[in-house]
Amino acid sequence: MKKYYAEIIGTFAMIFCGCGAIAINEITNGSIGHVGVAATWGLIVMAMIYAFGEISGAHFNPAVTFGFAIAKKFDWKEVPKYIIAQSIGAFLACLLLFFLFPESTTLGSSLPADGFEPYKAFVLELMLTFFLMVVIINVSTGSKEIGTMAAIAVGGVILLEAMFAGPMTKASMNPIRSLAPALVSGNLQHLWLYLTAPFIGSFLAVFSCKLVKDEQCC
Amino acid sequence: MKKYYAEIIGTFAMIFCGCGAIAINEITNGSIGHVGVAATWGLIVMAMIYAFGEISGAHFNPAVTFGFAIAKKFDWKEVPKYIIAQSIGAFLACLLLFFLFPESTTLGSSLPADGFEPYKAFVLELMLTFFLMVVIINVSTGSKEIGTMAAIAVGGVILLEAMFAGPMTKASMNPIRSLAPALVSGNLQHLWLYLTAPFIGSFLAVFSCKLVKDEQCC
Amino acid sequence: MKKYYAEIIGTFAMIFCGCGAIAINEITNGSIGHVGVAATWGLIVMAMIYAFGEISGAHFNPAVTFGFAIAKKFDWKEVPKYIIAQSIGAFLACLLLFFLFPESTTLGSSLPADGFEPYKAFVLELMLTFFLMVVIINVSTGSKEIGTMAAIAVGGVILLEAMFAGPMTKASMNPIRSLAPALVSGNLQHLWLYLTAPFIGSFLAVFSCKLVKDEQCC
Amino acid sequence: MKKYYAEIIGTFAMIFCGCGAIAINEITNGSIGHVGVAATWGLIVMAMIYAFGEISGAHFNPAVTFGFAIAKKFDWKEVPKYIIAQSIGAFLACLLLFFLFPESTTLGSSLPADGFEPYKAFVLELMLTFFLMVVIINVSTGSKEIGTMAAIAVGGVILLEAMFAGPMTKASMNPIRSLAPALVSGNLQHLWLYLTAPFIGSFLAVFSCKLVKDEQCC
Repeated sequence: MKKYYAEIIGTFAMIFCGCGAIAINEITNGSIGHVGVAATWGLIVMAMIYAFGEISGAHFNPAVTFGFAIAKKFDWKEVPKYIIAQSIGAFLACLLLFFLFPESTTLGSSLPADGFEPYKAFVLELMLTFFLMVVIINVSTGSKEIGTMAAIAVGGVILLEAMFAGPMTKASMNPIRSLAPALVSGNLQHLWLYLTAPFIGSFLAVFSCKLVKDEQCC
Repeated sequence: MKKYYAEIIGTFAMIFCGCGAIAINEITNGSIGHVGVAATWGLIVMAMIYAFGEISGAHFNPAVTFGFAIAKKFDWKEVPKYIIAQSIGAFLACLLLFFLFPESTTLGSSLPADGFEPYKAFVLELMLTFFLMVVIINVSTGSKEIGTMAAIAVGGVILLEAMFAGPMTKASMNPIRSLAPALVSGNLQHLWLYLTAPFIGSFLAVFSCKLVKDEQCC
Repeated sequence: MKKYYAEIIGTFAMIFCGCGAIAINEITNGSIGHVGVAATWGLIVMAMIYAFGEISGAHFNPAVTFGFAIAKKFDWKEVPKYIIAQSIGAFLACLLLFFLFPESTTLGSSLPADGFEPYKAFVLELMLTFFLMVVIINVSTGSKEIGTMAAIAVGGVILLEAMFAGPMTKASMNPIRSLAPALVSGNLQHLWLYLTAPFIGSFLAVFSCKLVKDEQCC
Repeated sequence: MKKYYAEIIGTFAMIFCGCGAIAINEITNGSIGHVGVAATWGLIVMAMIYAFGEISGAHFNPAVTFGFAIAKKFDWKEVPKYIIAQSIGAFLACLLLFFLFPESTTLGSSLPADGFEPYKAFVLELMLTFFLMVVIINVSTGSKEIGTMAAIAVGGVILLEAMFAGPMTKASMNPIRSLAPALVSGNLQHLWLYLTAPFIGSFLAVFSCKLVKDEQCC
């Protein structure tokens, strides 16, 4: 059970801090700023990898868990259990955010920028998750993100993708990170793309791993 | 005596730089900015862990010292001595800030945002300290925060929590960090929550550790 | 073939995220900000060094590949192959950016600031690449940028140079990073300086290495 | 001679990038911003420690060299040679900045904020150098700043001190960093405090080291 608790607490912390940054920024007229929101996402992922990497592998993301399973580094039977744990953490975080900041209308939901066509948002989210999973699979030990290398590399890639792509799609890269605030706050528009693109990006990253590494992946 | 001096100097540096950032930002019309204040807090904690982690464990925070004692990693008889050392450092820092920047009305005191109910501020500070102690207890060696892993993980979590929650509660997570500037500057409103929530958050983090680790904690 | 694929994917990711940050910042009225753009460049380089350093050495830059060859750490016969791989990655990234963000007029092209004389831009780009290659050659293992030391040092120097010199020349330091968006977007002014200065800066860095190290370099 | 060349190149890079950031920010109406200037200072120090720490110890600062000599970790006979090398690097950097950006009136000179009394600026610079040297002496190997620990800790403390104290005194902490741009740009006001306070702060840091460590220092 230890690894499931680790996924619950880690995903809870990630969603509470990351979506909380967007919600607080929203209700305080931008006091945190875009750079601050992106830094929050990157650093909470880094901190949670340090805290839980050796216990659960610090996935916190169904698309990452799926990618490791595709790469045959993670048991498919564990996948639904991990996704349930991640979902529990994400929903608890959004409910607590809703209690604390009910005046936030989005609670950090993933929404494409006005005028950015959904199919382009789909392509961008796919690319973002591709880059994320390329880094994760190259710095992980088996299916675990462990130690300084994984923490800084993965936290850094989350930070930079939230930074540059946040204005267009919020840089979700994570189905449960999009689903939980969408359901709690009722912002369900374009949710389909956030639930599908990350899995395809993760799959492509695992496939690309065959091009650059030996049989360790796939 | 070495470890007490380390706690005095480390807490002094942390409060001088962190509260100093808020005070200078206040008297220079926001020249540092919210991102700059949050970065100052995170990096001074990181630097002081590098400097003093091997000597005193780099607690600098009564709630952290308390958490290590709860977890049976730190001798209860040392707790009051550590808290006295942390208090000396924090008050000296605030007095020096008062000497340098008397025009600052807060000296970096922890104050909830206008309109943010105190019981919500209490819950938020509790959660912030929970996340902080979850990271600390998972990356520490016994009761000591040592080396690159602890320095970057703990400094990073301080930075991100100051970043996203600073606009609501100043993200204190530390009773002495709130008490010293409050007494020196006379901003005593809502002080009770900053003196209680961190201990509860720290306690919950130690308890949660039982869920994810073996008998090493608690 | 593995190292060429690594150079293609790494350069693709670097240009897509870095030039993408400039393009998105352009079309969203500065929502990312200068600090955010610089952080994107530094962190994507850091992440790609973590991902591909052990495979290809993580050059992603013809001037870096050239510098390693000058220093006799890299086979001259490999140089054109690396540059072709880097070019493929850079052009694919710019084409995808053009598809996603056609309203961007520059796609992140390197352009000197209005009123900054081209010969000064040449000198500045030369110095920037000199500093970059000084760091790379001192932290690399042979011709490879590997591990935490290279990732943080090289990512950090990219970040800081984009930060302080970006407003004058965009801090390219990389011929292919300038050529690809210039050709795709049609911004060919002053391209000559971005195609020449980095090679001279890289050469000077390798030469300076003789002053501070033993026969390991040159 | 290798270590002197390392001090020349490292100090040159630090002053060129750091003072260059201030100068470019000045002539481009704040395009870099305060956070960007502080990040530039911290990261160039970090990068140069990575590059030259094992060769010269990466001092780049007469007050640091002096502190190591006081601590009996560095030969007093080497002190003037190091200071000459640091001076050469700093002046070359300022002359090149003057050539590139003659419209900058300060070239990054250290000037206290208007209305901040010089004796307070003196105290603040003294404290800043004290914190810097406390970190340096605790993370160094002998008189050398080597590897990830020193690079991140020292770069981080430079970044945070430039961040929070920059608006009051520019956070020099380094006599040659203040002298060179002052002489080249003619901003000699209050120079005395920048030439004296860092040495006293460094001395106090070495003294404080006696309180927390064994005979390794002093």
